[in-house]
Amino acid sequence: MTVRMTAEELMVFLDREFPQVRGEFAIEELGENRIRTRLLVAERHLRPGGTVSGPSIFALADVSVYLAVLAMIGPEALAVTTSCSLDFMRKPVAGVDLVAECRLLKLGRVLAVGEVLIFSEGAQAPVARASLTYSIPPR
Amino acid sequence: MTVRMTAEELMVFLDREFPQVRGEFAIEELGENRIRTRLLVAERHLRPGGTVSGPSIFALADVSVYLAVLAMIGPEALAVTTSCSLDFMRKPVAGVDLVAECRLLKLGRVLAVGEVLIFSEGAQAPVARASLTYSIPPR
Amino acid sequence: MTVRMTAEELMVFLDREFPQVRGEFAIEELGENRIRTRLLVAERHLRPGGTVSGPSIFALADVSVYLAVLAMIGPEALAVTTSCSLDFMRKPVAGVDLVAECRLLKLGRVLAVGEVLIFSEGAQAPVARASLTYSIPPR
Amino acid sequence: MTVRMTAEELMVFLDREFPQVRGEFAIEELGENRIRTRLLVAERHLRPGGTVSGPSIFALADVSVYLAVLAMIGPEALAVTTSCSLDFMRKPVAGVDLVAECRLLKLGRVLAVGEVLIFSEGAQAPVARASLTYSIPPR
Repeated sequence: MTVRMTAEELMVFLDREFPQVRGEFAIEELGENRIRTRLLVAERHLRPGGTVSGPSIFALADVSVYLAVLAMIGPEALAVTTSCSLDFMRKPVAGVDLVAECRLLKLGRVLAVGEVLIFSEGAQAPVARASLTYSIPPR
Repeated sequence: MTVRMTAEELMVFLDREFPQVRGEFAIEELGENRIRTRLLVAERHLRPGGTVSGPSIFALADVSVYLAVLAMIGPEALAVTTSCSLDFMRKPVAGVDLVAECRLLKLGRVLAVGEVLIFSEGAQAPVARASLTYSIPPR
Repeated sequence: MTVRMTAEELMVFLDREFPQVRGEFAIEELGENRIRTRLLVAERHLRPGGTVSGPSIFALADVSVYLAVLAMIGPEALAVTTSCSLDFMRKPVAGVDLVAECRLLKLGRVLAVGEVLIFSEGAQAPVARASLTYSIPPR
Repeated sequence: MTVRMTAEELMVFLDREFPQVRGEFAIEELGENRIRTRLLVAERHLRPGGTVSGPSIFALADVSVYLAVLAMIGPEALAVTTSCSLDFMRKPVAGVDLVAECRLLKLGRVLAVGEVLIFSEGAQAPVARASLTYSIPPR
């Protein structure tokens, strides 16, 4: 299976379909069944002490798997998250972006499963891990 | 074990410690090991079609367990989420608030576990379920 | 939606399709979208100290959702677990059965979601909670 | 941090503390914060069609993280699983062992988090993924 969308095409699609998150995420690298994304951390993502909020970490994990799936199946706004498991392991470093390393473990006809490790930029130990299942609409 | 904080005290504490979410959540009802909360849905919580976003659903589940724990142990900003599992089951109804029914299943010395059912206001079938573990700092 | 199989029919089906678990589980009560089941604890389920093992707790949660789904859709051996989240909260009481209270939160065309609370018989506080997603084959 | 126990010491410890699972698991490789283990598939692990059962997959994931933690902290029978998330992605190949690749993502004072990929021996695509949290007793 090959990648059907470029990083640029994915971002154009995301901006158009989800204007609410415009400017929040960037794609760093894209490959077969994997993607590296970034949360461009801004004031609205923060909690006291400058740490990135839980919902922002969830959002980064979720968008990463979504983009990894779209890259493989083509533009399909209707893929939806059906389940998610998250472990929060370390406090994010204040004042830096988060980077997500995402890999698709399964891309079936009906379900896709991706796993994500999230790091504060420049740090070795992950802030969080996530696994998500997406339901893929009939094509 | 008895409830140590009133709904009003919890909201004062939340507003002071987490000014970023001021005005997003309300407490509907509070009891021993349980709470009912509300996400006051606004433009920033929405996705295309008027549906509430995944990160907003996560945020509601997370704050519900946090408040249920605080109500039992007293004001303790340092309780942190260590893990979370979420199932997204139905599309939220457009244009209405979300209501969360939360119950603590365990309140240990070190860990607390809560489960949450989330509904679009007025609907019978849940939009999502969540279970979260909080780590409680030494007292 | 109504219940399509009785507890007796479910047990006959389970014994025939999964002879490996014959005699391990019993159905206590069955209703629309809910079931109460029992793990008939034997030597092979135990760990040192007489506590029931994690895999046995998983097995009870898994079979409970499976039976709850079958009761609603009819005998369908091919429904398979796609994901599971478990929280282990208390040590099971030694020498007693486990009882599972299971509820279906969603029974869709393609996916079903069930949640389960597991108790040592006679105890008030749950040993574990679980949520499982089943994939339902096309009918 | 260095590895405190060898694979042989771990197996001696496991056999002594958990005689119920003697002969079920083997350690293939052990390193800092990682382990590769094997489920020696026997009749009692199977379901119809020769596929390995869900509880056996859970057991392999669970023992893998347990052994990875013990290897780092030393023999400590009292470490207990507090939560687990599992995705079942493909049917195991009939008649072959399962192999688990486990990595510790966090080894804190109180909690450890490990992730596991499980393969049918010789297959490229994983059968399942799991993440588990262990609670570590005070030392």
